[in-house]
Amino acid sequence: MNKIGLDIGGTKTLGVVIGDDGSIVTSAQSPTRFGEDGVLETASALVETLLAAADISPSSLSSIGIGIPGHVDRAGGIVRNAVNIGVQRLDIARRLRARFGIEIGVDNDVTAAAIGTAHLMRLQGTIALLNLGTGLAAGIVRDGKPWRGSTGVAGEIGHFPVDPLGLDCPCGQRGCLETIASGSALRRAWPRGGDRPGRVLLSAIATGDAEAQRAFDQLAAGTAAAVRLLVLSLDPETIVIGGGLSRLGEPLRQAVRAQLGLSGAESQFLTGLHLAERVRLLPTDMPAAAVGAALVQIAD
Amino acid sequence: MNKIGLDIGGTKTLGVVIGDDGSIVTSAQSPTRFGEDGVLETASALVETLLAAADISPSSLSSIGIGIPGHVDRAGGIVRNAVNIGVQRLDIARRLRARFGIEIGVDNDVTAAAIGTAHLMRLQGTIALLNLGTGLAAGIVRDGKPWRGSTGVAGEIGHFPVDPLGLDCPCGQRGCLETIASGSALRRAWPRGGDRPGRVLLSAIATGDAEAQRAFDQLAAGTAAAVRLLVLSLDPETIVIGGGLSRLGEPLRQAVRAQLGLSGAESQFLTGLHLAERVRLLPTDMPAAAVGAALVQIAD
Ligand SMILES: [Zn+2]
Ligand SMILES: [Zn+2]
Repeated sequence: MNKIGLDIGGTKTLGVVIGDDGSIVTSAQSPTRFGEDGVLETASALVETLLAAADISPSSLSSIGIGIPGHVDRAGGIVRNAVNIGVQRLDIARRLRARFGIEIGVDNDVTAAAIGTAHLMRLQGTIALLNLGTGLAAGIVRDGKPWRGSTGVAGEIGHFPVDPLGLDCPCGQRGCLETIASGSALRRAWPRGGDRPGRVLLSAIATGDAEAQRAFDQLAAGTAAAVRLLVLSLDPETIVIGGGLSRLGEPLRQAVRAQLGLSGAESQFLTGLHLAERVRLLPTDMPAAAVGAALVQIAD
Repeated sequence: MNKIGLDIGGTKTLGVVIGDDGSIVTSAQSPTRFGEDGVLETASALVETLLAAADISPSSLSSIGIGIPGHVDRAGGIVRNAVNIGVQRLDIARRLRARFGIEIGVDNDVTAAAIGTAHLMRLQGTIALLNLGTGLAAGIVRDGKPWRGSTGVAGEIGHFPVDPLGLDCPCGQRGCLETIASGSALRRAWPRGGDRPGRVLLSAIATGDAEAQRAFDQLAAGTAAAVRLLVLSLDPETIVIGGGLSRLGEPLRQAVRAQLGLSGAESQFLTGLHLAERVRLLPTDMPAAAVGAALVQIAD
């Protein structure tokens, strides 16, 4: 049977239909409407669009999976505090189940992206999806299954402090990794880049903007620190850079690898960890979170 | 059948015989002799002592497990670079097998301690043994099995830098957690404490030694940072403080919990992680590494 997966993001929602073999049958997207009712209507309409595009009925689906930001109560299928889509509390599983009559799975968008990344990039063993979004977090997958930890905070490395003299973080601490390597850190480091600095950073650097270059270098250094932290704690085979800032693409990956090589040059210990070799980039056209949402097991 | 486990440490080697049900039948210890031949003879003599004490023959053992510092090649049963016991390279599994005629398992001492801790303290789920020895590292156990990561470095959190202006670390980096929270960090922070500062630190504090107090506070702060790092990456249910400095006992645990409470007071995010509640102490009379060594599965 087919499955549908939706990746509900701050600006757009992406949906896929996948077949029994995990391949993508069709995909579609639409702008995400704001607020509880807006999000619900966006999701419902996109499911209808996907059903029509694939020429199937809800009864030929085994499940619909949702990847969404905010705090997700998976057992209850409820999303809370998804600030950037205007959701305080949305009983999304129950409401979509009432409409389509099938099982609805809900998971955190970063976890969904990690599941989809492992599947689409055919990565074995333990992988971490390092999500450079507004914030910084990693989704962990081990042998195809999400690794959530005992209370669901595994991979929340963005709020580990790495500099006692660093910037204040909204979490209440100082010098968190997220204050160095994230979209919000980039906005703070390079105010001229506006609200979506990732879209214009590389062109600003190309025109010789020194402040843009410094902001980029800081982002790469912080991302390298995140890679080091993941390897020294979880030791994943592969760390895939995803999230909105992965649009910085090969230049970012090269800069991160250079930073990891630098620290390795000073340290035989780090050289032996082969950090740079573990870093890959999520292709921007790969709908990892939508596919991962479709693959979410309701019992996982 | 019975199993024997040996914990080969820098000053003493501790051995246990455990029964089918995992309970300790008998235990014994002896000083560790230096160098390859010294370590081998220490281990062999202790096995003989244990066999005599339990009144059994090698044929009634299913295996002997060794927990040992240094770099362990588990498949080959070889130990390399165990500096503090004078071992450059020791083919310990082959040589003990030749002598006793049974299977020999070899594992890193911190991993063995984590396995034994989970078993003896009856801890479920994911646990981290935070080993405050000469260095700093964590052993991870998930549902009774060691979690080693993809290249065996999972839990090597001691070499993650947390202060760009921190002290130089022998690994080549600066400000590693190990430069704040470890036996070697304590010696550096409080030179007056001599070679084994952990043995005299609390009494020095009791007599009003301000430098000893500062060194203790730094140790507690660094240990708290290690707890934070473990929770934000691996999210274990329980973090057990072990290693030589766990002799600092309840005063250390209380100071670590106070540090974790402090950071929680500034951060709602951290409060929700219940960090302080996860921290326990390995009882000093609990032979965790020896029991864990006995339980090491050769295939794990
Ligand atoms: Zn933070
Ligand atoms: Zn180091």
